[in-house]
Amino acid sequence: MRVLGVDPGLTRCGVGVVDGAIGRPLRFVAAGVVRTAADTDLPDRLLGIEEGMETWLTEHRPDAVAVERVFAQHNVSTVMGTAQASAVAITCAARRGLPVVLHTPSEVKAAVTGSGRAEKAQVQHMVARLLDLGTAPKPADAADAVALAICHIWRGGAQERVAKAQQEFARKVEMARRLRG
Amino acid sequence: MRVLGVDPGLTRCGVGVVDGAIGRPLRFVAAGVVRTAADTDLPDRLLGIEEGMETWLTEHRPDAVAVERVFAQHNVSTVMGTAQASAVAITCAARRGLPVVLHTPSEVKAAVTGSGRAEKAQVQHMVARLLDLGTAPKPADAADAVALAICHIWRGGAQERVAKAQQEFARKVEMARRLRG
Repeated sequence: MRVLGVDPGLTRCGVGVVDGAIGRPLRFVAAGVVRTAADTDLPDRLLGIEEGMETWLTEHRPDAVAVERVFAQHNVSTVMGTAQASAVAITCAARRGLPVVLHTPSEVKAAVTGSGRAEKAQVQHMVARLLDLGTAPKPADAADAVALAICHIWRGGAQERVAKAQQEFARKVEMARRLRG
Repeated sequence: MRVLGVDPGLTRCGVGVVDGAIGRPLRFVAAGVVRTAADTDLPDRLLGIEEGMETWLTEHRPDAVAVERVFAQHNVSTVMGTAQASAVAITCAARRGLPVVLHTPSEVKAAVTGSGRAEKAQVQHMVARLLDLGTAPKPADAADAVALAICHIWRGGAQERVAKAQQEFARKVEMARRLRG
């Protein structure tokens, strides 16, 4: 399975591609950032992220896309831009019919270091180690995107199965409710 | 000038189309909502908003799109979804090369009622009155989108000129700085 990880952001949107499967060694494919200039207006920045995402999706043809889940609680000043960048990335992937899964920062940290509260340096160290690279991809946003892809390879399958089962259960409950009502 | 107003939201994204120009009577064209089901997952909801926006843009061919500016301070529980819905709407418009302008809720209220702190009912009353309709479009999200379109017709031109002048000034300052440095 090939996964494209996305660490969303308006100024630097990290992207990282990893091949792998549970129980097999991981293979690093590529990592980088989609940048947009802070002095351009929001519509142009969102278009720039869309173009960048399209390029990465076309070039690397991932089987799934893993995006960091954004919380309203963190960094109020930048959170709106992060949410908007993530929406564009998610829509680009969904438009191609790719499965898109959101992972929280602590899920990602736990997946690659064993601790949900690991430091950034520790995550980067483990990314380099797990992918057999001399150093982690730079800048940090690219390394974070790669960590998201690894997290998805290791957790994604299980998570999707749980989500599907939950949806199925909710559908049955709703059907039962309607039949009764 | 034909303006499409968008009151972004994941569950109900209000849309409203108005024709007009400064000093001329306004003409109501259409209003409605793009809905996505709360029990579907985020990628599908964002795709649904994209499809709805595309339909409205194709059908009504606006000259400009006015979107409500989302603030991180308001309604923390829904603000992320609102930001994400707005990103999709903005990107759809920008992709077609349409000018996209963001207006704050108080700018919209001030434009249609004269007061930036007007009640919702007052905004709806004025929307109906300004467009010579018996009652405001329903639901409230559709009426808010129409109010955004009116706000843009009355403020938009001036605002765009100010923004362009500011950008031009910033460019000159930057150029002077580089020549000096």
